[in-house]
Amino acid sequence: MIILGIDPGLLHTGWGVIETQGSQMRARAYGCIDTKSGDDLGMRLQAINQGIAEVIDTYHPDECALEDVFFGVDAKAAFSVGEARAAAILAAAHAGLEVGQYPPRQVKQVVVGVGGAEKSQVTYMVRRQLGLDHDPKPDHCSDALAIGLAHALLTRGSRRQQQAAATAQGEVA
Amino acid sequence: MIILGIDPGLLHTGWGVIETQGSQMRARAYGCIDTKSGDDLGMRLQAINQGIAEVIDTYHPDECALEDVFFGVDAKAAFSVGEARAAAILAAAHAGLEVGQYPPRQVKQVVVGVGGAEKSQVTYMVRRQLGLDHDPKPDHCSDALAIGLAHALLTRGSRRQQQAAATAQGEVA
Repeated sequence: MIILGIDPGLLHTGWGVIETQGSQMRARAYGCIDTKSGDDLGMRLQAINQGIAEVIDTYHPDECALEDVFFGVDAKAAFSVGEARAAAILAAAHAGLEVGQYPPRQVKQVVVGVGGAEKSQVTYMVRRQLGLDHDPKPDHCSDALAIGLAHALLTRGSRRQQQAAATAQGEVA
Repeated sequence: MIILGIDPGLLHTGWGVIETQGSQMRARAYGCIDTKSGDDLGMRLQAINQGIAEVIDTYHPDECALEDVFFGVDAKAAFSVGEARAAAILAAAHAGLEVGQYPPRQVKQVVVGVGGAEKSQVTYMVRRQLGLDHDPKPDHCSDALAIGLAHALLTRGSRRQQQAAATAQGEVA
């Protein structure tokens, strides 16, 4: 199973690709799409949209996960995150991928065990659980991998059930 | 000159196509792209993106205008407007159109003459200036036409200068 995690932002959109096999998980690739604040908004959104489309073309993820709406930010920041999110989601939707959405607190809760965990704790757990020998940098990459990891952990139970059902069906057939 | 005005929203995205010939302006078409709040976000953004792409394919606008970031709204509302905006802007960028952006106050100032004008005053002026014999409904269509009209009025001066320069060049050549 290949999972694509995305941490969208108009200036920096982090992405991370995770491969799972049973309970084994590893980071396969990660990166960041940067745009310039002075550039035309259409060009910047296209860069995010096409960047994510290229990641999908390269790694063929089965599932995709993004950070959900977060509050406590000002309207202007929410506005640009919303724009970047839409550019990324449209690339996923175009490839027929559904997008899992998780609030930041839930991602931290699942990855670290504490909803209010520090960034360094998230990076530490991402590195450890995904078999990396270094901290994924910049932070947007670590965040994207954390979102993918949270999705992998949260959906593992239902996936295991589906596999068991498919096997049982195979045995009966 | 064909101008496409867009009033983006996740639930309702209004659009309006304006045709200008010298100082003459008329509404050529308008409409609204609606999405359901319970539907998958990717599907909703695709509906807006494809809806605007179809309008562009049908009317071949030369220029495009949108409402700019507005403040005084809560972060959650800003988030979804940002998402809808990005879906519309990506359709315009894909067609090679640059997007003029105007704050709501400027649109009202240009169309009605008063930055704090009421919605009904905007609709009245849109109807009058664009030669419509009825109020464009729903409000999102009237707003989209107002944005297009503001863009037409604001860029008319520079367009006239460009035409004069081109004519002068033609006379010299």
